[in-house]
Amino acid sequence: MKIISLTTDFGNLDGFVGVMKGVIWGIAPDAHIADVTHDIPPQNIRQGAYALWRAVPYFPPGSVHIAVVDPGVGTHRRPIGVKIGDQQFILPDNGLITPILEDAEQTGQPIQMVHLTNPKYWLPNVSRTFHGRDIFAPTGAYLATGVPLLDMGEQISDPVRLSFPKPVKTAQGYQAHITIIDIFGNLTTDLPAKLLQNKAKVEIRFMNFTIQGILPSYGHAQRGDLIALVDSEEYIELAVVNGSAAALTGAQVGDALEVIIHD
Amino acid sequence: MKIISLTTDFGNLDGFVGVMKGVIWGIAPDAHIADVTHDIPPQNIRQGAYALWRAVPYFPPGSVHIAVVDPGVGTHRRPIGVKIGDQQFILPDNGLITPILEDAEQTGQPIQMVHLTNPKYWLPNVSRTFHGRDIFAPTGAYLATGVPLLDMGEQISDPVRLSFPKPVKTAQGYQAHITIIDIFGNLTTDLPAKLLQNKAKVEIRFMNFTIQGILPSYGHAQRGDLIALVDSEEYIELAVVNGSAAALTGAQVGDALEVIIHD
Amino acid sequence: MKIISLTTDFGNLDGFVGVMKGVIWGIAPDAHIADVTHDIPPQNIRQGAYALWRAVPYFPPGSVHIAVVDPGVGTHRRPIGVKIGDQQFILPDNGLITPILEDAEQTGQPIQMVHLTNPKYWLPNVSRTFHGRDIFAPTGAYLATGVPLLDMGEQISDPVRLSFPKPVKTAQGYQAHITIIDIFGNLTTDLPAKLLQNKAKVEIRFMNFTIQGILPSYGHAQRGDLIALVDSEEYIELAVVNGSAAALTGAQVGDALEVIIHD
Repeated sequence: MKIISLTTDFGNLDGFVGVMKGVIWGIAPDAHIADVTHDIPPQNIRQGAYALWRAVPYFPPGSVHIAVVDPGVGTHRRPIGVKIGDQQFILPDNGLITPILEDAEQTGQPIQMVHLTNPKYWLPNVSRTFHGRDIFAPTGAYLATGVPLLDMGEQISDPVRLSFPKPVKTAQGYQAHITIIDIFGNLTTDLPAKLLQNKAKVEIRFMNFTIQGILPSYGHAQRGDLIALVDSEEYIELAVVNGSAAALTGAQVGDALEVIIHD
Repeated sequence: MKIISLTTDFGNLDGFVGVMKGVIWGIAPDAHIADVTHDIPPQNIRQGAYALWRAVPYFPPGSVHIAVVDPGVGTHRRPIGVKIGDQQFILPDNGLITPILEDAEQTGQPIQMVHLTNPKYWLPNVSRTFHGRDIFAPTGAYLATGVPLLDMGEQISDPVRLSFPKPVKTAQGYQAHITIIDIFGNLTTDLPAKLLQNKAKVEIRFMNFTIQGILPSYGHAQRGDLIALVDSEEYIELAVVNGSAAALTGAQVGDALEVIIHD
Repeated sequence: MKIISLTTDFGNLDGFVGVMKGVIWGIAPDAHIADVTHDIPPQNIRQGAYALWRAVPYFPPGSVHIAVVDPGVGTHRRPIGVKIGDQQFILPDNGLITPILEDAEQTGQPIQMVHLTNPKYWLPNVSRTFHGRDIFAPTGAYLATGVPLLDMGEQISDPVRLSFPKPVKTAQGYQAHITIIDIFGNLTTDLPAKLLQNKAKVEIRFMNFTIQGILPSYGHAQRGDLIALVDSEEYIELAVVNGSAAALTGAQVGDALEVIIHD
């Protein structure tokens, strides 16, 4: 049984996601469909890219991931298919895949990219405004049934890439950035926790707050404390115990924090 | 594997939809269940009817659609089952099916309607407040397992009908109406795009805005422009490129627009 | 085909639930997964407990229920598995199971409880902040594949219990409490409807409102009336016909109401 995941900015109000499931199950009746999220803010490619990047490692081999945050629908932006290791992706060529692609390049995984041009795997009528339904859903469903990605178009090697923040080495440590603010108000950063391993002392300065050390878990501080810890993807995260670091600090995605390391 | 779709105003807070899935899978363990939407504003039958009407054409033959926007639960309003072509519907008899029914009548599809009176296909205890769980979910599940609709009650031919706006012919073209405002703030109208085909010039007046022509896609105008284009169901839509036409215009469902046609 | 239900406070923004589904289907590829709700207010164990308690009776025998409202993640709070009759539960030991446990104890159902300590059924790397993904999802999935609960840890008999409001007998009847406010603004109470059966006259006093009698359904009063009726779980509920009792009264969960009974 193949798994198809869906990541969009379609919300759940209008039925757009339900329609995509109808299309998928018409082609791949045995597929399981997992909603990753449909609440990406409209046309926020970066946030969609992060959500996809965090979810994919936990899906079984052979999964197909359809992601549609697509401000360029109906323009010349390409629909693409990407195969990385044993996972496949169907998405607009606008940078949604960038973080996953960069990870794959760093770890040397095989990567195949295809411009989806073969209308055999689309709905018969393709609208100008809803390629999620007309191109991405059916193509992803055919992938799940075993159609090879290479049948779906021509190979490419020049995907659109968005630049995502990276921590910057400083004299005293790193300048890191808030990358994701989750529903609990936790603030994920772009600083991999392994960069702080075995350091004698770490201090984080963010806005008017100073945080001493990286705690093992929420349970190692008092209710209401602003703390730093290692998040579930092994990045440094700021959190308030049983509260919201976003509400406390007013942080926005992209805000910088200073990480000072004493070896 | 049969598909069951769900369209309700139950939201996702209280677990009402999860309970319906528990009931469905107890009866039809092989069914796939697709949520169309559960975010219809409470008791807004019209919006539920539009959501269902837009979704159904994309579901495979043999699908069963359960829709529950049901201000009359516990009163004498009838629960009904409807078979149109190869799709079946289970819903309260309050007009939720009207747009689908009207389309079927116009295209001459076979239609079968049944007042659901056979308690054999309900839960043993039927509450007065949650027929989604006690009547609609189990009946829909039995339909999906192949029980004929005619076993579930008596045929009827007098369903409740709601009146939905229709474009009105005017001296210069049409008066059309906003029918759906989607999550992106796009404004769908009741004007089928085919009525504007092959016209030399089309002008749309809406509130203080005048829009010239119907564009092929969002990509044919500048960011922030208010444009008209053909939506994914082949109706005329007003949209702001990479923005929200609803926010720009303050439009409400039902608002009228003037469409002026020059042949 | 086994059913797994999910009840969390994870929302649908971040993809946490989608990740759990990826983990589950990697272990139990045939499972159906029903979302009960993911909109429990952050860390509101009581509301999560009610949602689970209401949903479970409608799931087929053999279902596995994973519930994660988990302010103590990463601390010494235990992850537990519970088997009650033919239903199994995987959740943090913080009282989420209390109402279900109390019902089972009252009706004398067999109960088995296990502290989940066997890492064989967890993901290889367990984070400190996301046990929903790393412990609860995989353990629940293994349960669904037929692994016996007793293989997953040591039996316990001292689960954490939260106290939930109970109606208090008064000279004239009962003092009851608002337990759940649903999306329609209906106010569920802790008063079982059977306590009012065959009573000649019932009067409910709540805030400045007085309600006479228990009506059979919403349809037995006028639009806008504040009424009392029997909810879908057989408890007394306050509701406004085609409106919101929460908006009308400003009620909060925990508020008390006086129920005066005349035999």
